[in-house]
Amino acid sequence: MGTKEDIEEGAEFIPKFDDNGLITVAAQDSQTGQILMVAYMNRQALDMTTQTGYATYFSRSRQKLWKKGEQSGHVQKVEQILVDCDQDSLILKVAVDAGQCHVGYRSCFYRALKKNKDKKLKFIADKVYNPQKTYRK
Amino acid sequence: MGTKEDIEEGAEFIPKFDDNGLITVAAQDSQTGQILMVAYMNRQALDMTTQTGYATYFSRSRQKLWKKGEQSGHVQKVEQILVDCDQDSLILKVAVDAGQCHVGYRSCFYRALKKNKDKKLKFIADKVYNPQKTYRK
Repeated sequence: MGTKEDIEEGAEFIPKFDDNGLITVAAQDSQTGQILMVAYMNRQALDMTTQTGYATYFSRSRQKLWKKGEQSGHVQKVEQILVDCDQDSLILKVAVDAGQCHVGYRSCFYRALKKNKDKKLKFIADKVYNPQKTYRK
Repeated sequence: MGTKEDIEEGAEFIPKFDDNGLITVAAQDSQTGQILMVAYMNRQALDMTTQTGYATYFSRSRQKLWKKGEQSGHVQKVEQILVDCDQDSLILKVAVDAGQCHVGYRSCFYRALKKNKDKKLKFIADKVYNPQKTYRK
């Protein structure tokens, strides 16, 4: 544990994992700035990511480590890791060469709330691959 | 609760709050694409955000609603809200006119891990305001 000043103003990486042992991570396309997904890492996933140079997350639903692209091949090559002021969130700046969302889109954020109709979504992207083909492999 | 297909492929907004009643939110500068901060909303914070057009979060450390900028004046005008495939994360595309981080930087992500030294951070931004002056007001 560091002091508030160490954490916020220091040059030491002191990642803060929550009560479930997780830290929140946004993966951002290093070329375009598009946010591709938001996921979580435990300590082991973070270590694997820094050691291999490819993003590994911890799946909350499956409760296991998940190397991004292990099934689809749609990996994320990590170019830079940023940390926020209180060191409880990370950004991975990643290079990708295919759609990152398991539904078939480049980004998981392919829908936006319609204005003044806050229960309705509009699609703002087109699918870039066919997940049925990709995940059947 | 919707089916997996409703949630992933549908046009209905069915935000999924976690066991603590929270959903993860990344605020992204709508002009530059820079990720400014990652925070959390409960249902009430989300409703206040959609109703007022300005970002309100739920502070996990203080366990209370927190209208971004209530102290500093550094508000976030929400231009668009994106939701991800499983509807458990949001992106707010925001317009901002001042530094967003309480430490004094434009973004909370002002440090990056040094390559091959995974315990050391380098500063990648300069402060854009003096928080001691701003928060003394």
